[in-house]
Amino acid sequence: MSLSPVLIAGDWRPADASATFRAHNPRSGEPLGGEFPTSRWSDCDAALDAAEHAAVELRAMDPNKIADFLEGYATRIEARTAEITELASQETALPVEPRLASGELPRTTGQLRQAAAAAREQSWTQPIIDTAANIRSRYGPIGPVAVFGPNNFPLAFGSISGGDFAAAIAAGNPVIAKGHPLHPGTTQLLAEEAQKAADEAGLPKGTVQLLYNLDFADGERLVKDPRLAAVAFTGSRRGGLALKEHADAASTPIYLELGSINPVVVLPKALEERSAAIAEEFTGSCLMGTGQFCTNPGLVLVQDGPEADAFVADVTERFGAAQPGVLFSKGGLDGLSQSVDALKDAGAKVLAGGAPAAGAAFSYENTVLETTGKSFLEAADKLQGEAFGNATLIVRTASIEETRDVIRRLEGNLTGCVYSATDGSDDASYDVVAPELRARVGRLINDKMPTGVALSPAMNHGGPFPATSHPGFSAVGIPGSMTRFAMLQCYDGVRPHRLPASLQDENPGRVWRNVDGKWSNQGL
Amino acid sequence: MSLSPVLIAGDWRPADASATFRAHNPRSGEPLGGEFPTSRWSDCDAALDAAEHAAVELRAMDPNKIADFLEGYATRIEARTAEITELASQETALPVEPRLASGELPRTTGQLRQAAAAAREQSWTQPIIDTAANIRSRYGPIGPVAVFGPNNFPLAFGSISGGDFAAAIAAGNPVIAKGHPLHPGTTQLLAEEAQKAADEAGLPKGTVQLLYNLDFADGERLVKDPRLAAVAFTGSRRGGLALKEHADAASTPIYLELGSINPVVVLPKALEERSAAIAEEFTGSCLMGTGQFCTNPGLVLVQDGPEADAFVADVTERFGAAQPGVLFSKGGLDGLSQSVDALKDAGAKVLAGGAPAAGAAFSYENTVLETTGKSFLEAADKLQGEAFGNATLIVRTASIEETRDVIRRLEGNLTGCVYSATDGSDDASYDVVAPELRARVGRLINDKMPTGVALSPAMNHGGPFPATSHPGFSAVGIPGSMTRFAMLQCYDGVRPHRLPASLQDENPGRVWRNVDGKWSNQGL
Repeated sequence: MSLSPVLIAGDWRPADASATFRAHNPRSGEPLGGEFPTSRWSDCDAALDAAEHAAVELRAMDPNKIADFLEGYATRIEARTAEITELASQETALPVEPRLASGELPRTTGQLRQAAAAAREQSWTQPIIDTAANIRSRYGPIGPVAVFGPNNFPLAFGSISGGDFAAAIAAGNPVIAKGHPLHPGTTQLLAEEAQKAADEAGLPKGTVQLLYNLDFADGERLVKDPRLAAVAFTGSRRGGLALKEHADAASTPIYLELGSINPVVVLPKALEERSAAIAEEFTGSCLMGTGQFCTNPGLVLVQDGPEADAFVADVTERFGAAQPGVLFSKGGLDGLSQSVDALKDAGAKVLAGGAPAAGAAFSYENTVLETTGKSFLEAADKLQGEAFGNATLIVRTASIEETRDVIRRLEGNLTGCVYSATDGSDDASYDVVAPELRARVGRLINDKMPTGVALSPAMNHGGPFPATSHPGFSAVGIPGSMTRFAMLQCYDGVRPHRLPASLQDENPGRVWRNVDGKWSNQGL
Repeated sequence: MSLSPVLIAGDWRPADASATFRAHNPRSGEPLGGEFPTSRWSDCDAALDAAEHAAVELRAMDPNKIADFLEGYATRIEARTAEITELASQETALPVEPRLASGELPRTTGQLRQAAAAAREQSWTQPIIDTAANIRSRYGPIGPVAVFGPNNFPLAFGSISGGDFAAAIAAGNPVIAKGHPLHPGTTQLLAEEAQKAADEAGLPKGTVQLLYNLDFADGERLVKDPRLAAVAFTGSRRGGLALKEHADAASTPIYLELGSINPVVVLPKALEERSAAIAEEFTGSCLMGTGQFCTNPGLVLVQDGPEADAFVADVTERFGAAQPGVLFSKGGLDGLSQSVDALKDAGAKVLAGGAPAAGAAFSYENTVLETTGKSFLEAADKLQGEAFGNATLIVRTASIEETRDVIRRLEGNLTGCVYSATDGSDDASYDVVAPELRARVGRLINDKMPTGVALSPAMNHGGPFPATSHPGFSAVGIPGSMTRFAMLQCYDGVRPHRLPASLQDENPGRVWRNVDGKWSNQGL
């Protein structure tokens, strides 16, 4: 069986492979498809050289060409929808419908088109003009970006197709994609279309490059290489922090999007009002995609009382009644087992599930654990460990103050939700918990679950450490997410004809600019 | 002689001192003023506790109170102008006039008032509203910030009065100031006024705190403490990177503003046109403040030829004729000596100066060194070492292509200047060098020297590593510099009355907001 080539400098070429690997079907545990290479350093080195050259060319290029690429790529992905979603489903056990074909693939192409629009419009560069001093600034491209994709969204967060990729490219940077080894075939299909679209748009060779896998040492060497300008990583805390240590040593900006337990607070009057509806919504959110979402609700806070008893019983029953989904891998199954065991060891009580499911699939019983606010406060570090998958921990507190105290002990999270009664009778309780939650989460949500991450310019898919590595940036939401891959470029007294078009008086592209403190999309 | 107290939790209290130190008059080398403490960890610990509490209160506080503080503080500084500038002059050897009283002090109070205006106006929070999805985001305060001030601007970059302080406070964060040990008396005077103004404005105790000095281990412990949310540091590369390593380990954002050699390219026709004027301007810029500026022009690139001969001779004569200024400290003098020696060892030829000046003052001869483009390319690492003070290196290149090649070997810098002929005859040469310079500097300048750093929203006092630790942020320029001390806060489906005022439909404060892709300062 032949070994898949890697994409370097515009060409599919044989990898300098130190090892090979294959995907596995999570439904059966059987190997799937062909062999893929783990690249040696020489592949990284060649990709870095090509990216460095591409970055110079891209800086001088009309951004409309980059937009053409992003749109052409989106169209090409759509043309191969059936093939891509079928293979992705085999590699991940995510269903073709509705998840992949009606959800993730349109999300992916929509994101690419939003990025294309941002590249065309150029308002993402946020020009600031001081007319009196004749000083003009804007964001410009930062240089080659390495994107490490996660296991859980092979398309929408994929290393060569997802949000980080789209944002980095739209900001004018080449991307070295490091694929996730659980879905190499899907990544290959996407990369084939990316390179064709890049050729059609006339982008420099090396704008899009793909390495399927690296050993740890080469990954670390890659992120600290002086040719690299920035890194985006979505995945586990352990993996992300290992890379971060090396990127930090070189002062290369690195944006990590790590795990999160996404606390959900259900206030007492909301439970009185609509316990069953919330239980249903929660169960759907927590078990969707077998719980393998960064924004999966892994911690629920309810105040003790008969309504809480009923809610917990209801959730437990729903979790027990639902068919457990399939996890991405043996590693994911083992990780979930260990995480649930750790919660049990820390004193959490199992109400449903709590063990691997029977059968050949990588599957774990839908799991509900329970603890008290008092117990949580005594072992807050252990009881907020993430259990990535279809498991959740319900914390029953004695009072709203105890709920607040639990929140005060939480690390940074991507999201925090509060459900409250529609008649306002929970508002005083809301005011006790919301400020504490606000300071600890990137996105504060009312009356809905965290798993929907809208592709909106106002979205924040980010949050304080350890949810991410910097609380000022979002991984989702064009154009804001693009500034992660930008440098601030000031032009001080630069002669008019030498300015980039978006900083010239005429503003031919009608870019939104801050001129002397006022925003306008007109000329001076 | 009594030991000056430190400012913790709103009170001037005796330090837990491990050692004491005094300032020295750089003009005489004699000690000056009283004793100041190097704090032990217990002082840091107490300051962190107080800052953590202050941060919670500040988040709930009307930003107009913060603005009141900043304005009241500015007025109080002005009322003590004579005393502050006299002491600062004694501690730094910077002249009262024009530098301190007519330059740096008004810059400082102007910056505080700009920060106050930004806190009142709240447009710095950059609200983004997606009306269809009802998702709303803005920047909010990040939490306690430690500010490490530099030696060279006791007021305008001072730990408890400068740009980082003003930006962090205006964004709603408490500041723990770590003073610079070369001007503790000046810092004390400023801190006294800061605390009085904070009390008058009703800010929480612990909003402004001051420790005069820390040993290295406690500084490193401070920046990685989980109670701290961000760090700003202005100073040497060695000191900054040592702190950064520890802040990075805790994923605490740290913004370093380090050294820079600020290349100046003088194109051939500009030399033909106005060699003497440029030589005069350059000499003034390089020797001002004894060259102790982050933006001091330490590297000049000229193309060989008779005009270059004349320019170099002219600069050499001007440097030789000017009276050498006084440096801040014995350490600064030693550092400059070593840096010039290192340039000599790397092959640079001394044209003027090159040795400590006679007398008791910390003073070094005005120094011009020279090398060729060829030699620079052979030892680029060594020949771009910063010589902080009144010294510069002229690189004579054989061609515009060699000039470009030299630029390609430069590390990240704060600024890059290009002088070109007014008639456009240098434009082809400009196009060869400017793109390379653009990618390596934060601020690209035409036809003027880099030492003026205007207090403009469009300013970028930043640049790629190692000029700073992140190329996307500026240390100067309200309101942009405030986002360094902010977290991104998203409100997803949050009920209207629970939103911060600037995210509510009505927009009562007339904040500039991005609504569905268009900027407006009106309501929805």
